Amino acid sequence: MLEKLKERVYKMNMMLPKNNLVTMTSGNVSGRDVETGYVVIKPSGIPYEEMQPEDMVVVDLNGNIIEGKWKPSVDTATHLYIYRHRSDVNGIVHTHSPYATSFAALGKPIPVYLTAIADEFGGPIPVGPYAKIGGEEIGEAVIKYIGRSPAILMKNHGVFTIGKTPEEAVKAAVMLEDVAKAVHLALLLGEPEEIPEEEVKRAHERYMTKYGQN
Amino acid sequence: MLEKLKERVYKMNMMLPKNNLVTMTSGNVSGRDVETGYVVIKPSGIPYEEMQPEDMVVVDLNGNIIEGKWKPSVDTATHLYIYRHRSDVNGIVHTHSPYATSFAALGKPIPVYLTAIADEFGGPIPVGPYAKIGGEEIGEAVIKYIGRSPAILMKNHGVFTIGKTPEEAVKAAVMLEDVAKAVHLALLLGEPEEIPEEEVKRAHERYMTKYGQN
Amino acid sequence: MLEKLKERVYKMNMMLPKNNLVTMTSGNVSGRDVETGYVVIKPSGIPYEEMQPEDMVVVDLNGNIIEGKWKPSVDTATHLYIYRHRSDVNGIVHTHSPYATSFAALGKPIPVYLTAIADEFGGPIPVGPYAKIGGEEIGEAVIKYIGRSPAILMKNHGVFTIGKTPEEAVKAAVMLEDVAKAVHLALLLGEPEEIPEEEVKRAHERYMTKYGQN
Amino acid sequence: MLEKLKERVYKMNMMLPKNNLVTMTSGNVSGRDVETGYVVIKPSGIPYEEMQPEDMVVVDLNGNIIEGKWKPSVDTATHLYIYRHRSDVNGIVHTHSPYATSFAALGKPIPVYLTAIADEFGGPIPVGPYAKIGGEEIGEAVIKYIGRSPAILMKNHGVFTIGKTPEEAVKAAVMLEDVAKAVHLALLLGEPEEIPEEEVKRAHERYMTKYGQN
Repeated sequence: MLEKLKERVYKMNMMLPKNNLVTMTSGNVSGRDVETGYVVIKPSGIPYEEMQPEDMVVVDLNGNIIEGKWKPSVDTATHLYIYRHRSDVNGIVHTHSPYATSFAALGKPIPVYLTAIADEFGGPIPVGPYAKIGGEEIGEAVIKYIGRSPAILMKNHGVFTIGKTPEEAVKAAVMLEDVAKAVHLALLLGEPEEIPEEEVKRAHERYMTKYGQN
Repeated sequence: MLEKLKERVYKMNMMLPKNNLVTMTSGNVSGRDVETGYVVIKPSGIPYEEMQPEDMVVVDLNGNIIEGKWKPSVDTATHLYIYRHRSDVNGIVHTHSPYATSFAALGKPIPVYLTAIADEFGGPIPVGPYAKIGGEEIGEAVIKYIGRSPAILMKNHGVFTIGKTPEEAVKAAVMLEDVAKAVHLALLLGEPEEIPEEEVKRAHERYMTKYGQN
Repeated sequence: MLEKLKERVYKMNMMLPKNNLVTMTSGNVSGRDVETGYVVIKPSGIPYEEMQPEDMVVVDLNGNIIEGKWKPSVDTATHLYIYRHRSDVNGIVHTHSPYATSFAALGKPIPVYLTAIADEFGGPIPVGPYAKIGGEEIGEAVIKYIGRSPAILMKNHGVFTIGKTPEEAVKAAVMLEDVAKAVHLALLLGEPEEIPEEEVKRAHERYMTKYGQN
Repeated sequence: MLEKLKERVYKMNMMLPKNNLVTMTSGNVSGRDVETGYVVIKPSGIPYEEMQPEDMVVVDLNGNIIEGKWKPSVDTATHLYIYRHRSDVNGIVHTHSPYATSFAALGKPIPVYLTAIADEFGGPIPVGPYAKIGGEEIGEAVIKYIGRSPAILMKNHGVFTIGKTPEEAVKAAVMLEDVAKAVHLALLLGEPEEIPEEEVKRAHERYMTKYGQN
């Protein structure tokens, strides 16, 4: 079932090691099927290079396994909580990508120091508090603190990104690490000026409507 | 039309991910055909790995699309402004390469701390002010502040490089990130002495006339 | 003899360059055969890309060469000392992976600043004193200071990791560099709060029992 | 002529991009033929990926081209000066590898903070003064300041390494960047203790006589 979505979620999971966002078996991507409401997610602890589309696990929004030969990601409860509370979200990514995680470790948001942050994120990258892995605590914190951002840093932990599709959530995860690196390097040499809020809005709007093909 | 230039501009665009200067669909390279005055540029938001030479877009100096199935880069107006004001420039590159962008974020020029900077750039890498993406503001700022340098850092944004050919502009973009990294790492441990201006001139002149094959 | 273990130890050695933990011929992995008590270890100074499973050297716990055309790793005495004093350990890894080694250079432990450290290591990464390479001094220091951690930083030197299998020890070495990088980057921007000891215990226990497939 | 040495020097040049020590056409390796005294060196400004063994240039110790279709490296005079003054040296490498170059930019030596430095280099990595590229000034400074080290940092410039063979010189260049990175990262977090001179001597001696195969 959901073979196309499994293929897409598989491909998006493979984007994580390809973009150096994960190590060994860490990180995960899920996608929601809008019709059935089922969620396709990476299995727990399976090496990326051994994974195939058919290894993806299908769960319902309460975490019941609908199909799959493996246990789903230990972060499944977090993904499901977010899906249940954000009907606009159909793709979620979790990573410990190192530059973004360095801000997460400190509980420091990433201000809009770069046009790329205005364009992709439309505002500062927010931070959520420390929350226990495995239950619903992380999902609750993500929902509470992410606002309109496609990305959030979880204190002492790492990154969650969301999107209208798994592809969008993965793009946010990749671009987040990119801007986190440039901002980190800048902060080592000085304190950049923030782009004013008005201009951030304008730039983000332009990017969302003018960038790319129709 | 302009099949050879499209092939060259395509190849030079592919040098950006190959040298880790760009992420996802960011960055772009263009080239000007001296005879027709037309400019060949990367399409907007197309992943590098899916791009082919025939996807390059041909525009005239006023931004009218002459040929191409895609919308051109959102930075096209910037490229065209530079071409219109610098008849010596036939290749332009834009990136957010991380080490160079860390200086750009701060609005900090890169002094001539290394022989490689004297050789390739003939002086400090200048900085332009914050300018809005999409219109002519960035082009104006590049023209105003780049002087005789092949590279400029745009505040809170990233890098533009220029050259007599797309190949030269790409070389400048690659070498800029290289020296930006070494200088950044040096600044974390101390304050290097600048190479005196006279010596920078001598070294640059030697490099421009003696380096490489005829 | 021990062809299967040689294959596994070979594969685990090849994980070191694949994960950028070693340079040239540095680093090594060994595995103990529980039945015979023999240890299979990397030969000394052979480039990874030229190595084959049959190049692995078989030694007994006193360092006598049982089989092999090459001299074993110069760190063999260290590995053997650890095997003789820790019957629960059947895999050992040594690297100079750069971020972990930067902590080792300073003799600084890595506190539990990240959930990934709680999960994988169950506590701070301890540090052992400077000890001479080649004899038993390093083995003694590892045994004395590693406690229940799967990894230890050796002052002015590098990293040793241990596991119930060579695969587990390699996973610890890879994850150690991963968390060392994120923590290093965080420390450049501030001082993270440690995750409280109780919570570290809970998280580690959960990870050890719930993560992955059965 | 000297086909075997050309093959070896070619292969060693290719080790530079493979180990991320060079960018575009920067860096070079040469080797001396002990019998004829001729030196085989990389051509100037040829991209690594296009280079073949037959592109190597053969020069005599005074810089006369003995064979080759290309101009030799602009650093040829430096290599030749070193060969004329160090009969024990038959291989030389030049790079701008970024971590080592960050120390070079500052004119800062690298102290023996790591066993890997004691092992490979037998002492601190020395620094030479700023010297003009292209003439004999760099060669003179290398000879004056390198002492018994296989590597030297040239102020505001980069790295030269020497060896009994091109292979040895390349190993020194690769290991130098490796230890420069670990030391750089350590210095960002504190000030490591140096390994005492006596112990450095002992460790280096052991490494030179016990490491690797006979």
